[in-house]
Order: sequence, then C-alpha cells, then structure tokens
Amino acid sequence: MEILFSINGKISSPEEALISASDRGFLYGDGVFETFHAYGRVIFRLPEHLRRLQRGASQLFFKPAPDLKRLVGWLRAAVATANFPEASVRLTLSRGCGPRGPSLKGPFVHTIVIMVTRHERPPQKRFEKGVRAIIGTVRRQEAGALSNLKTLNYLEQVLARREAEEAGADEALLLNNAGLLCEGSASNISLIRNGGLLIPDPVRSGALPGTAQLTAVEAARRLKFPVLYTVLSPWDAFGADEAFLSGSMREISPLVQIGVRTIASGRPGPLTQRILAEYRRIVERECKPFKF
Amino acid sequence: MEILFSINGKISSPEEALISASDRGFLYGDGVFETFHAYGRVIFRLPEHLRRLQRGASQLFFKPAPDLKRLVGWLRAAVATANFPEASVRLTLSRGCGPRGPSLKGPFVHTIVIMVTRHERPPQKRFEKGVRAIIGTVRRQEAGALSNLKTLNYLEQVLARREAEEAGADEALLLNNAGLLCEGSASNISLIRNGGLLIPDPVRSGALPGTAQLTAVEAARRLKFPVLYTVLSPWDAFGADEAFLSGSMREISPLVQIGVRTIASGRPGPLTQRILAEYRRIVERECKPFKF
Repeated sequence: MEILFSINGKISSPEEALISASDRGFLYGDGVFETFHAYGRVIFRLPEHLRRLQRGASQLFFKPAPDLKRLVGWLRAAVATANFPEASVRLTLSRGCGPRGPSLKGPFVHTIVIMVTRHERPPQKRFEKGVRAIIGTVRRQEAGALSNLKTLNYLEQVLARREAEEAGADEALLLNNAGLLCEGSASNISLIRNGGLLIPDPVRSGALPGTAQLTAVEAARRLKFPVLYTVLSPWDAFGADEAFLSGSMREISPLVQIGVRTIASGRPGPLTQRILAEYRRIVERECKPFKF
Repeated sequence: MEILFSINGKISSPEEALISASDRGFLYGDGVFETFHAYGRVIFRLPEHLRRLQRGASQLFFKPAPDLKRLVGWLRAAVATANFPEASVRLTLSRGCGPRGPSLKGPFVHTIVIMVTRHERPPQKRFEKGVRAIIGTVRRQEAGALSNLKTLNYLEQVLARREAEEAGADEALLLNNAGLLCEGSASNISLIRNGGLLIPDPVRSGALPGTAQLTAVEAARRLKFPVLYTVLSPWDAFGADEAFLSGSMREISPLVQIGVRTIASGRPGPLTQRILAEYRRIVERECKPFKF
C-alpha cells in the first residue's frame, strides 16, 4: 500500500477513509493542515509543525483546542503502521460537523485526518542542477484574515501550482498585493546576497512561516551566515547571488532561474549547497537511524 | 427528516452522506458551490445560479465542465424527495479525487453533493423592522484570483460571520483592500439614494455577483428606479437614504443600522419595501403554486 489513512485515530485504507459530506472542511475549507516529512519512523520537527497548527486553530477559534498529545499518538501510530522508508504525512484538522450554515455557534465535532503517503526522494540531480520558478499571477494578501495561516483555503496555491506546471517550471513565486516577494505556491523563498540570507518577513509579506525555512535559517546560523527577515521585491530575487526554495518535502532546492532570468551564473551557489548539507546533518541527527 | 443529501445523484440520509477523505474539496477547498432557494418544489432562478457555477468551474479549470442537464435532474429529484414547503438547497461541486498533491494534472473524478435543508421563513418583523450590520475587519481582495467566485475557500466569510454574531448584528459588511464597500459575509448590499439603486460594482469591488441582487435589480427596474453599479465607500452607506441586503435565502432585508450609525431614520425605507414586494411577486410568478 502506498497510502494509509487515520480518521480520528482509526487506521483506514483509502477506500474506508470517509468523512461526512457536511464536514465544514468540505463546505467552507474550515480547517488547518500541516505536512510533515517522516524520515523512517521519525517525523522531522514535529513540535514546530504542531505549534503552527495550534496557532492556526486558535486564530480560527477552534474549541476545544486540538489535543496535541493525542494527535502525536495518532501520528506516530499511522507512521509506524505505514512503515515507509520516507513519507509525507498530512494532518488535516477540520472544524468538522455541527449546526448548518457558516456560523461558529457550535458545538462542533472536529475531524482529524492523517494521510501517510510513501515519499520517493527526488533524483540527486535536482539538487545539483537546481530548479526553475516563474512569477505567478496570483497575488497573496499581506494583511488578510488568513495571511500566515496554513488553512484548507488553498485554492490560490492550487491555481499558482498550475501556472508553474503550464510553464514547465518547478514552482510559482507569489507576490503580495504590494508587489513584494511573498512565497512559493508550496515553498518559501530565501535569497543570498553578500554571504547573508535574506528572507521575506512573514508579517510584512504575508508569507507562511515555513518550518523547513526555519531549519534552513538554523543551518545558516550554524554556518555563521547572517540572516535578515526583511521586505524584498522580485528585483531583489533577480539580482541575488544565490536563491533557494524550502519546504518540508523538498527540503532545499537551489533556485537558478525565475522566468527568463537566471540567478547569477544559473547554477546552484556554494552557500546554498552548504546550507543543504547542514540541513541534512540536522535531519540525520534528529531522525536517527535515518541516513541520506 | 429536516435534511436530505444527494451524493453524485444518489439520495442519502445524513448518516450515509459520506465523501472520501482525499476529496480535494476537503484538502484544498478546491471547488465551487451555490445555494438555491426552493419555494415548494420549484428552485428559484436555477439557470442564473448554474451559470455562475459553470463560470466558477471554468475559471478553476474543471475538466470536464459540469454536466448541467444531469445536475438539474439530480437537484429536482432531491428537492422532490425532500418535499419541504421551503428549502435551502446547497450544491457543492468539488474537483474530487485524483493524484496526490495540489497539481491539476488529473484525471479527477468530480464530487457533487446536494444538501436540501428545510427552511423556516424568518418572522415577518425581520422584514418590518430591518436588520443591523457591522463593518467587519476581514478585507476582501478586489483583484484576487478568487474574487467574484463562490468557491469552497469560504473561511474569510466564516470569520466575518463570527464578528457579526459577537456584535449581536445580523451581518458583517466587508470592505476590500482599497477600503471600498464590497459585500456582506453572505449577502450583497444595495444602497438607495435620490430614488435610485447604487450597487458596488463586482469587477471593481471584488464582490460576488449575487443572484438575489440581480432579482432585486430586476424588481427595481420594473418599478422604474434607476440602477447604477459603481464604486462605493462605507461613507456612502452611512449617508444613504435607504439600504438593503440581498441573498437567496434572506431575499431582501432592509438594513437600518451599520455599527453605531443608523441609516436615515433607522427604519426600513419605502423604496426598499416596494422592491421587496416586487421581489416576492417575481418569486410567486416563477415558483407557482407557491404563495407568501
């Protein structure tokens, strides 16, 4: 089996994995999610993901708050049962079922779906040659009610993803309403200039604070590279010395081209390569006995 | 039974109404919906709703396009089986199931859920006394990828609805990023000034083009009131002679107060009352033998 579900803690095959058609996740996208990377049976940076999930649930007024201890138990059980060498683990927390209509006057019975999918590690040449992005036409709202949250309202990202595919690119970069650099459709962007990391500030750009990006920042700091969260335009990206995308499943992808513009030489930069290597050391240390 | 489902054309009780946990409506809010008002067994303005559904599906690159003839059959069967004196009929069209991840490279098997709920007509005093709204803090994106579409990405409206409830108001009015008047969380707003209707232009405001608002416009034109789609600020609403909210289920609600400001006298205006009466005449004509 390549995919395994856990529905409210009950391990299920894809055929058995059903939810109510009146689940608010389905009716309104009323919920939050996280995608974890499991290396062997160990979920990388689980606490960081759960903190973000908890913050999202709180901002959406979920009551009761998610029981993280129980969630961790369900996650571990699902990953152990699946027993994949590497897996993508999606945890969806939906407000579930309750009275009809968009009102938040409950009570609601939350729905928790865990989906464990076998992960095929991309070929090494992807890391060696780097990837190409486009600037998408979808604009993110930098001060919207849902900015910085990973909610089930994910259609903008779906549409941006399609633009990237149509262009034969790996990712679409999204600007915000002010025209500033925000994030990828399913990744965060980091730039390198003068030996330091430049990252779109989530508060000012509207970007989701990425957990893989946090790990990249930690890697950069270990390597003594300065890190600055700031306001960046697409022109900063075009003129960067190096750039990379980060994401739980993609880890670190050197970004070598945006649309028709190559970044510097058009080849992955040396600092990006060092950050990727350090990222993997962190993974190996925290996800023993996993080895790249 | 107060609620009845049809899942891909199969009539189901709430307990049997299940969808896959990997349905993209649930994972990404990847779909569109419509809420129809059935008066007796007749669905009011069905073609207008279906046109909007079709346009949304097309803008989200649904393939194949929805089979409207089949949808109409399923809708009529569900409404007839429910046999409620009045009903709210929600049709959800989700991209359904397909390959994992946000990519649109299919194939996908769309999911169609029809939910028929008995509608209790609100007390007449609601129409006689009017309703109160607040200006919500949620801002709508006027030129976003999802503006003017009725998608399953409905969390902003859910959060706005909550603000209204917390304030003891009937509705929250949403401004767009430019601070201009857009729409209610689940309704459209129309103003009356100098005997004419002023409506936030969907293209410039980002509002969803409401089907009930279209009927209100038709009613106004029959009554020889001029109608102008334009750019409106919240100050235009505060200073209007009259105002009303429209929605398929609410029909026409006279709006008499926004936050701490009363609109004119704070009582439903005479032109609003005439538009409501004309709206109901249109309903009675099109939904025979229904009578208010």
